[in-house]
Amino acid sequence: MALVVTKFGGSSVGSTERIMNVARRLVARKEAGDSVVAVLSAMGDVTDELVSLAAAISDDPPEREMDMLLATGEQVSIALLAMAIHALGHDAVSFTGAQVGIVTDPTHTKAKITEVRADRVREALAQGKIVIAAGFQGMTPDGTITTLGRGGSDTTAVAIAAGVDADVCEIFTDVDGVYSADPRICPAARKIDVISYDEMLEMAASGAGVLQLRSVEFARSHGVVIHCRSSFNDRLGTIVKEADDTMEQAIISGVTHDTSEAKITIRDVPDQPGVAADVFTRMAEANVNVDMIIQNVSEDGTTDISFTSPKTDLPRARPAVEAVVRDLGARDSSIDESIAKVSLVGAGMKTHPGVAAQMFRCLAEAGVNIDMISTSSIRISCVVEGDKVEAAVRALHTSFGLDSDAVIAEVAPGWGEE
Amino acid sequence: MALVVTKFGGSSVGSTERIMNVARRLVARKEAGDSVVAVLSAMGDVTDELVSLAAAISDDPPEREMDMLLATGEQVSIALLAMAIHALGHDAVSFTGAQVGIVTDPTHTKAKITEVRADRVREALAQGKIVIAAGFQGMTPDGTITTLGRGGSDTTAVAIAAGVDADVCEIFTDVDGVYSADPRICPAARKIDVISYDEMLEMAASGAGVLQLRSVEFARSHGVVIHCRSSFNDRLGTIVKEADDTMEQAIISGVTHDTSEAKITIRDVPDQPGVAADVFTRMAEANVNVDMIIQNVSEDGTTDISFTSPKTDLPRARPAVEAVVRDLGARDSSIDESIAKVSLVGAGMKTHPGVAAQMFRCLAEAGVNIDMISTSSIRISCVVEGDKVEAAVRALHTSFGLDSDAVIAEVAPGWGEE
Repeated sequence: MALVVTKFGGSSVGSTERIMNVARRLVARKEAGDSVVAVLSAMGDVTDELVSLAAAISDDPPEREMDMLLATGEQVSIALLAMAIHALGHDAVSFTGAQVGIVTDPTHTKAKITEVRADRVREALAQGKIVIAAGFQGMTPDGTITTLGRGGSDTTAVAIAAGVDADVCEIFTDVDGVYSADPRICPAARKIDVISYDEMLEMAASGAGVLQLRSVEFARSHGVVIHCRSSFNDRLGTIVKEADDTMEQAIISGVTHDTSEAKITIRDVPDQPGVAADVFTRMAEANVNVDMIIQNVSEDGTTDISFTSPKTDLPRARPAVEAVVRDLGARDSSIDESIAKVSLVGAGMKTHPGVAAQMFRCLAEAGVNIDMISTSSIRISCVVEGDKVEAAVRALHTSFGLDSDAVIAEVAPGWGEE
Repeated sequence: MALVVTKFGGSSVGSTERIMNVARRLVARKEAGDSVVAVLSAMGDVTDELVSLAAAISDDPPEREMDMLLATGEQVSIALLAMAIHALGHDAVSFTGAQVGIVTDPTHTKAKITEVRADRVREALAQGKIVIAAGFQGMTPDGTITTLGRGGSDTTAVAIAAGVDADVCEIFTDVDGVYSADPRICPAARKIDVISYDEMLEMAASGAGVLQLRSVEFARSHGVVIHCRSSFNDRLGTIVKEADDTMEQAIISGVTHDTSEAKITIRDVPDQPGVAADVFTRMAEANVNVDMIIQNVSEDGTTDISFTSPKTDLPRARPAVEAVVRDLGARDSSIDESIAKVSLVGAGMKTHPGVAAQMFRCLAEAGVNIDMISTSSIRISCVVEGDKVEAAVRALHTSFGLDSDAVIAEVAPGWGEE
């Protein structure tokens, strides 16, 4: 007799047949005695199709209207799933983001949840109904439709789980859980059974695509236990929760990698106080996200500044960097899109000082050059050449004893989905 | 400086190009100084596609969830039109049926509007915005999404026009207005410039497809002036309003026809008191709509009862009629699907007693046999053989002096749309 919030992504509800499968799973849970809330994304490619419609009308559609448009995607999914559950002889009721009480700020296309008014969900559960809620969307206090942006459906599920004080928030996805590395490039990767919020946050931030950063942050701040599992089988996946003594004390939980960033270098900037502040103020003004930063001081009174940014920010970064070069009297700038980042994440490294040294030695032995380094208390990240990153992941995975005994027989079809 | 509510049907917004055309029209109105509210249907075949999705899941989906599903259709249209208007440099805001304040009873799939809370529309108009509202949908007082059923978008437009006290409610459609007969079968038909609510109601009820009965009823009871016009040109269409002395005093306004009904006959029913009540109580219980009724008493103490019903009701009518034959001891029953109904509508017939006689004589001279007759104070309808109905319409149109001087050059592409 548990109260369970379950989230199914777009590929899990990508066709009417798959929606029937989801309905059967939910009915089985209900018949086993659980109270069930399901949070859905839009079907398969529906969101992309809606974006194309908008693009045919405007290069720069108002974000309020994009949210009005995109919110229809989940509304279709929830209605169909409720019909499917009725067809199986059980009672279900669907709610849009607004109806389910997801209140947000008015930041269209990436709204933040400010409140969850879960009365309606609680009422429907008390009536014995399976509740189906639209993920990804909410409304402002004055009733305007908003969307939560990337990872929004996961965040909706965690928020509703917090709102109804659920026992667990299950995130169904197309992989078996969180892996110690991306199984597509590291066949020896093993599924992690339990992981702490902090480690999961570092893994999500450094490239693990299974769970979205925002949903894990929301879960941590509201104490929601997440169970990340496959929608294609009934095996246990990965539990994400507060660290406690029962967790296995691995030094390293996983190796992640990220090929979505580029490295920008500005050479021979006059080395004066405030120059770095100047550069990164301009990047922020150009709405360019910056991840890692290094600054090398040379002997002639100039300095080189390098930083990494998402490749998707480059159209805004290029003119901003050119302006910096011109205005600060630097020599020139360059952008390297062929880099990648490899990271080690593990709570155990706080108490094991040799981890960084072992990481650098392992990479050197594998012939991988390190370009930039950044660390947190439970993560070490290195920027390396893009074509070496897969070898780097495999070498680190083996070096830190993460390889499973057997190569996993069945590689999941993808590596996470919205 | 008028306040105008305009409604565009599914084919008027059937593609992104057509949505851009609608946007240009609205912007021109706005630039001419009018305040503008646009009410939209779903794009082209979107509603049919959503119905197919539901049919793939369930033979009998819950109506609440059908409404949740179908309401997405208009939500897509309104968002895209708002984007199109922004792309033209004007300010627009879209509202769902719930947001625009269309409050309904909870009769899902055919809800009735109980209240229009137009504050949000008035506010947005006061801010100089073009307001885009989703037709066809509303919400119950507790916030559940409903749809209004067939003709719902027209009704939404009229309801909002009543709510904001608009000068006129324009219904854009794919024909130039209301014609004195269906121009596809009567090339001499002429567009009617002005028509009273009562005549329009009779025409809509007897086969004219341009305006939906419910929207005209709503307009009459709230005194909303309707202008029914083409979305493909700027010509004036047909004004529907309260009868007054300025209207032309034609005896007959139009000739309508309807081929959607079948005639059901039950023969040799014992002629006892209450037998007709019994038959039609059973039809009502089987949810069979009945239009015209005739009963002939024969000399041997039995009677024949004939009535017309929509062909779409036949699956329910057949077993109900068979039960009546068995239970009342009638001889047998028959169903004739090849009939049609032709009607004359005109407020002038109240004061011109010879209209019926002229109609019957005209049909006789055209070789059209009359099977059943029914009348109201401003309408006479005859059931005739289906393959004679087009000839009947043309003969009556000529006989009552309705033919235009010239055959209309450009026949509109269809005869009304949702």
